[in-house]
Amino acid sequence: MSEKILLSHGSGGQLSEQLIRDIFIRHFNNAELNKQGDSAIFQNQTQNSAFTTDSYIIDPIFFPGGDIGKLAVCGTINDLSVAGAYPAYLSAGFIIEEGLEIATLDKIVASMAAEAKNAGVSIVTGDTKVVNKGKADKLFINTAGIGYPEPAYQTMSTGNNIQPGDKIIINGDIGDHGIAVMIARENIYLRIPVKSDCASLNGLIKNMMDTTGKIRFMRDLTRGGLATVLAEIVKQQHFGISITEDAIPVKDEVKSACEMLGLDPLYLANEGKFITIAAPDVADSLCGDMRSHPLGENSHIIGEITGDPPGRVIMETEIGGHKIVNKLSGEQLPRIC
Amino acid sequence: MSEKILLSHGSGGQLSEQLIRDIFIRHFNNAELNKQGDSAIFQNQTQNSAFTTDSYIIDPIFFPGGDIGKLAVCGTINDLSVAGAYPAYLSAGFIIEEGLEIATLDKIVASMAAEAKNAGVSIVTGDTKVVNKGKADKLFINTAGIGYPEPAYQTMSTGNNIQPGDKIIINGDIGDHGIAVMIARENIYLRIPVKSDCASLNGLIKNMMDTTGKIRFMRDLTRGGLATVLAEIVKQQHFGISITEDAIPVKDEVKSACEMLGLDPLYLANEGKFITIAAPDVADSLCGDMRSHPLGENSHIIGEITGDPPGRVIMETEIGGHKIVNKLSGEQLPRIC
Repeated sequence: MSEKILLSHGSGGQLSEQLIRDIFIRHFNNAELNKQGDSAIFQNQTQNSAFTTDSYIIDPIFFPGGDIGKLAVCGTINDLSVAGAYPAYLSAGFIIEEGLEIATLDKIVASMAAEAKNAGVSIVTGDTKVVNKGKADKLFINTAGIGYPEPAYQTMSTGNNIQPGDKIIINGDIGDHGIAVMIARENIYLRIPVKSDCASLNGLIKNMMDTTGKIRFMRDLTRGGLATVLAEIVKQQHFGISITEDAIPVKDEVKSACEMLGLDPLYLANEGKFITIAAPDVADSLCGDMRSHPLGENSHIIGEITGDPPGRVIMETEIGGHKIVNKLSGEQLPRIC
Repeated sequence: MSEKILLSHGSGGQLSEQLIRDIFIRHFNNAELNKQGDSAIFQNQTQNSAFTTDSYIIDPIFFPGGDIGKLAVCGTINDLSVAGAYPAYLSAGFIIEEGLEIATLDKIVASMAAEAKNAGVSIVTGDTKVVNKGKADKLFINTAGIGYPEPAYQTMSTGNNIQPGDKIIINGDIGDHGIAVMIARENIYLRIPVKSDCASLNGLIKNMMDTTGKIRFMRDLTRGGLATVLAEIVKQQHFGISITEDAIPVKDEVKSACEMLGLDPLYLANEGKFITIAAPDVADSLCGDMRSHPLGENSHIIGEITGDPPGRVIMETEIGGHKIVNKLSGEQLPRIC
């Protein structure tokens, strides 16, 4: 087999067939995919389905704590999970720049397969396209995902259940992914290295849904970070959000990297963090339960839903002042996911 | 609003929100998408689902008979349809090169919306990423699709129902898409213009499934063309295929363009053509019924499944000889879809 990706690997002919067999089928290996039909066909587990998609264009494709393949699996799993759905099936669409080392593709596909196995999902259908050298940047991956909504949480993703008094819980430190990617991209040396938090959250979220029926809303903190997600939640709503800067967990090494680079951790992308809005009477115990899961060890209640002022996120700062937290405007770190 | 796509349009912040509202929501406009949740949630129509994905990287993004957006909708609809499923929901993932005119994106998204409406499917979830200028080529689109398998045809896509004696029907002329794109890309003048056959086949295929329970297999004739699809069908099988060159419909203008460009229509990509393998006793009437649909007007029986030689596609040529038809090797026309 050729050691680099050629345009012919995307032709639909003999080299495409080789690539599918030797890389994709070998790693993803499951009954549905192995049939190589035009579509995968499977039995639905519940009456409803959840469906989502994301393209991944991260630069560089390998970074501390992960790679574009792991990210493409985790990211889509997390979008389903925060909608209250159990992720089941993924598709994978590869756009490859001619000349990519086949060994690199193999490593990334192996990483996707490992993460899918770890999270209990199957990659059942896929597609490969190759573009001429210089017309893409190494590798872009799209994943779409199908999940089955937890019946008790069918309406969670609408956000309509959020009420003043509800508490906001985060499952750990913010900013790790943004800093890890930045460091890898710019080749910056940090005394204490920072790894991306890239992880599949479906296990933790399943535990949480099993524990209580009083989760009002969840969302993952990807592009735009915690600040942007909170600002979106209150937009055109009759409620606001109050958060306490002191309560938001940020690693010291991330804080100092942010200072050095002029970045604000509130706006940094995360790939294994999400916020949960929960009824006040269950928030403490839910936060405690989250801490017993490896992906929730540093869970904290960081604020609450307020009645007034509506439509605003107000942060009590470390020095005791108050400031309005807005959505990200402009672009802090392009190609972060 | 800025007239060109900026990196910030992919940031997840304010400009992303504007783009989603002013372009995607405005055109795709449906209840599921408008909720803007992490995942779309909908009720399943049957016990099983069919799931497929394709990325579209065609160059140029506008060509006679279509554009990358229309193609991204039709292509995924067709992959579901030939698996015997009724397409219902699509996702759309956009990877945009910084600097693309927003008017261009708007035109393509409008074209996707029109084709989705025409085919009766909803685009319910999506994603937008922007990469730096020079790191992609204008626009790549991934669509994934969910469909509901026709119960009578649950096992069709396995190919296990194919039997010697079955007839092979094509729904019209081959090679139009390949030539139309080639002409547009290379700026070649043809006396009689050729348009891509890009079309959603779900309506025609539904009619066919309603008409008879004796369809054994269907497949669309995209990358690698008719030759590659037929060669794939017989691979490692106990049966072969015999086709008659004379019976395969090719427009005169496509034939002469092929001669001029040194291309073989058998290997050219199509985006609105598929083959149907049907029981011999229904083939003639099925072919007749197909002709009553606008996308099947030039349907023909082009050959049959044979017992001997197994694993081979043999074509009786126009001059009366016989030749073996192999899969595409190498790449005839890169970035054709």
